[in-house]
Amino acid sequence: MNDQSPTNTLKLRRLGVDTRQEFVVYMRANCHICISEGFEALTRLQVTVNGQTIIATLNVLHGDLLLDGEAGLSESAWKVLHPEPGDIAFFNHLQPVSSMSLVRAKMYGHRLDDEAFSEIIADISAGRYSDVELAAFITACTGDRLELKEVVSLTKAMIRAGENLDWDQNIVVDKHCVGGLPGNRTTPIVVAIVAAAGLTIPKTSSRAITSPAGTADTMETMAPVQLSLQQIREVVQKEGGCVAWGGAVQLSPADDRLIRIEKALDIDSEGQMIASVLSKKAAAGATHVVIDIPVGTSAKIRNQQEAVRLKEYFRQIGRQVGLQVEVMITDGSQPVGRGIGPALEAMDVLAVLRQNPDRPADLEQRSVSIAGSLLELAGRTGAGNGREIAQGLLVRGKAWEKFKAICEAQGGFREPQSGHLQESVVASVDGKVRSIDNRRLARLAKLLGAPLRKGAGILLQCKIGQRLKSGQTMFVMYAETPGELAYAKLYLQREFDFIINLK
Amino acid sequence: MNDQSPTNTLKLRRLGVDTRQEFVVYMRANCHICISEGFEALTRLQVTVNGQTIIATLNVLHGDLLLDGEAGLSESAWKVLHPEPGDIAFFNHLQPVSSMSLVRAKMYGHRLDDEAFSEIIADISAGRYSDVELAAFITACTGDRLELKEVVSLTKAMIRAGENLDWDQNIVVDKHCVGGLPGNRTTPIVVAIVAAAGLTIPKTSSRAITSPAGTADTMETMAPVQLSLQQIREVVQKEGGCVAWGGAVQLSPADDRLIRIEKALDIDSEGQMIASVLSKKAAAGATHVVIDIPVGTSAKIRNQQEAVRLKEYFRQIGRQVGLQVEVMITDGSQPVGRGIGPALEAMDVLAVLRQNPDRPADLEQRSVSIAGSLLELAGRTGAGNGREIAQGLLVRGKAWEKFKAICEAQGGFREPQSGHLQESVVASVDGKVRSIDNRRLARLAKLLGAPLRKGAGILLQCKIGQRLKSGQTMFVMYAETPGELAYAKLYLQREFDFIINLK
Repeated sequence: MNDQSPTNTLKLRRLGVDTRQEFVVYMRANCHICISEGFEALTRLQVTVNGQTIIATLNVLHGDLLLDGEAGLSESAWKVLHPEPGDIAFFNHLQPVSSMSLVRAKMYGHRLDDEAFSEIIADISAGRYSDVELAAFITACTGDRLELKEVVSLTKAMIRAGENLDWDQNIVVDKHCVGGLPGNRTTPIVVAIVAAAGLTIPKTSSRAITSPAGTADTMETMAPVQLSLQQIREVVQKEGGCVAWGGAVQLSPADDRLIRIEKALDIDSEGQMIASVLSKKAAAGATHVVIDIPVGTSAKIRNQQEAVRLKEYFRQIGRQVGLQVEVMITDGSQPVGRGIGPALEAMDVLAVLRQNPDRPADLEQRSVSIAGSLLELAGRTGAGNGREIAQGLLVRGKAWEKFKAICEAQGGFREPQSGHLQESVVASVDGKVRSIDNRRLARLAKLLGAPLRKGAGILLQCKIGQRLKSGQTMFVMYAETPGELAYAKLYLQREFDFIINLK
Repeated sequence: MNDQSPTNTLKLRRLGVDTRQEFVVYMRANCHICISEGFEALTRLQVTVNGQTIIATLNVLHGDLLLDGEAGLSESAWKVLHPEPGDIAFFNHLQPVSSMSLVRAKMYGHRLDDEAFSEIIADISAGRYSDVELAAFITACTGDRLELKEVVSLTKAMIRAGENLDWDQNIVVDKHCVGGLPGNRTTPIVVAIVAAAGLTIPKTSSRAITSPAGTADTMETMAPVQLSLQQIREVVQKEGGCVAWGGAVQLSPADDRLIRIEKALDIDSEGQMIASVLSKKAAAGATHVVIDIPVGTSAKIRNQQEAVRLKEYFRQIGRQVGLQVEVMITDGSQPVGRGIGPALEAMDVLAVLRQNPDRPADLEQRSVSIAGSLLELAGRTGAGNGREIAQGLLVRGKAWEKFKAICEAQGGFREPQSGHLQESVVASVDGKVRSIDNRRLARLAKLLGAPLRKGAGILLQCKIGQRLKSGQTMFVMYAETPGELAYAKLYLQREFDFIINLK
């Protein structure tokens, strides 16, 4: 009953409530629409402003934040409908989201086909699912409940649901790292090397979701990353590569919504992860992709067996959606490089690109491996020669030149700045570093302010196997505000013994 | 880090936002706690006021609804913590809800034991699960994913999590109807008959969740139902029975939260439904229970096969948690009685109890069947004599006397009043009633204002098989406001042909 009669209209007031991506509408409890429509808190309803309709969840206000005849929208809804304050909105009962019946079928163990996943993903992309419905979809697909064929269908649906880039090239390369390791910021280096070799690599990256820095956060300390699709096209046409924030371009709109709920549930459905990664690569126009899977007890993938299975899935599903996928299983036992946090990681990246004498060797080696793999996969060189060519482009300064050019094309290069508050953390006994806890270090870096504070984070001064004397610096904490430093120190007090294990 | 230092405190302001049971906390985007703790929208955090702690979801405010140094709480959270405006609240990172790891295990197909369900249900009862987490738990248990043994564990956990009543009687009876049929308001009649026969029947009922009336809504038009545990004890001790609202007593606190999310997902996990029903009966102190399963194409249970399987589960699981369960499979093809809506249904109930000549025969027959079954199950009479004894108690006015006494004990009897706005809906052709759509009738009654407007709803004037002439009344709509009547008529316009099928 999409009624646009004046009986179901309210004037909009901007309340400024951030509910992230969930659309929320606020009405007074005694509002005539609530009463006549039988709306109550958490009812899902349609909101139409200037001809555009979204589905939102109702929160009912008992106070006087709204006047009689007014309704509010969450910032997410406000940004999509972009009304002027005082604009009229129409409110209607929700037509049930029909694809939820497919989700229910999946809950009851039925197999879904291409079309079913298409409908579900189209509705999710359009914001028609509530968080609770998203959680049900994710759970129904978790735990070996998706057959390989279904993951292929899901991947294809995700590709179709978003923007698709086309580069007019036979070969377009990309890379991805599954389950980031702190400091493992190979992307800017790999892009620079590969683009310097003449390949096309239109790289879009995410900001941190639960980590102290995403590639986009790190890159942003060196150049602007918030590029439009058109800007990405121009940068890549000019320089062969870019490192842009993927959030500004809608390559896989369903994915952002799903990932947010997966994080809240602290699960990572294998099928959805594979679909998420491969759909973004395909939508970005990639044809050849290298995937890095770090394995370690405090990494996302904890053992070799899991990594090998995942590798096989990536290759098979990649093939079925038209991607050539190579998977590298790497060491995930400790952070890579020295910095953890946007600016500190960027400094590692620049040290490698500039070939500074004190550059972190592990970060360089990983970057060269991945770049080499991409060169081989793309047929630029024979098997086994990729690394050498990649290393050569670094040593001869070609990668650094290309990186500067990319930064200029993205809006201009700048030097990253570390936080002005620093405090060293020293070993309390003599010993050999036996293990380093990636998760606790990430947590500490976040308490220091990363990724919001670009200069905050940790500079590691030791690696596994290294001998330390009591009093010797294990790592330095960087912060931008005294409050954040104080918070981190409280955490450190409690967790000191677990972060770096000396024996 | 349950830090109660002044660095993580804010003053509380009451914003009056109703989010139903979900606890939400509101902070300014530039709030020092958001920044230093890395909180962002949808972060789950601990809120402590005057020594009491809850877990809430964060919404971030960009406007000026809150002053610097202030935080807001949803009404649900405000009611639990009951601060004074201006009270200080402490905000801390959430210690992860440890039982979510068990839910994740269930997602991945593991079997859970007694202890696991206990932990999960205890956390849900305490409000430690977010809606998204509840949705994941429900989905992980839906679709044959719970073994019978697990349903028993879940049922036991739900019994343990709430209040438990003890009646110091060997036999305490109860009844339940699975998937209400509009108008099927047998409970007040059954309670009156059975209590008149000398049995103990401490009945707690729910308000409508998605239907136009719950038993508690209907009963409330005749007597107060919002009784405390102590009041329920007193009424039952005096009269042998009661019809109270279950929401006021915490018999199964997890259940309300789970049901709300199941409704949002429009699913009904069989295992959870059985656990929900049986746990409430056991917690209320029942020993012998009759369950009514109406079967019909527009009822909740749509075919005989489904009903028979459910019957077997109820009996087996009942036995394992110490309940004697009898299941009746009944006709669910059309509404029972004439009224749909709280007061209109109450009028049917009273017509039966008072043995008015125009009482609805179908409602009387069902009530007598259930009451008879309870008398037999409780050993008050031999097999096959229950109905006759029950009928006798009705005919001789004993049930009506008992009902009045129960109403007086609950706070006083009153006559239900139907809405003052009425409109008849007539047949558009001559014909025989072939089918009646329970769901559409319920929807129409809700648009008319039920259950919020006690007098609103529908009075059916025909039954399946009856011949109608064009122009003859099929049903009468009752409303309390012109707006609601107008809404219902709009719906009727569109759905007229589907509500009552004449052939």
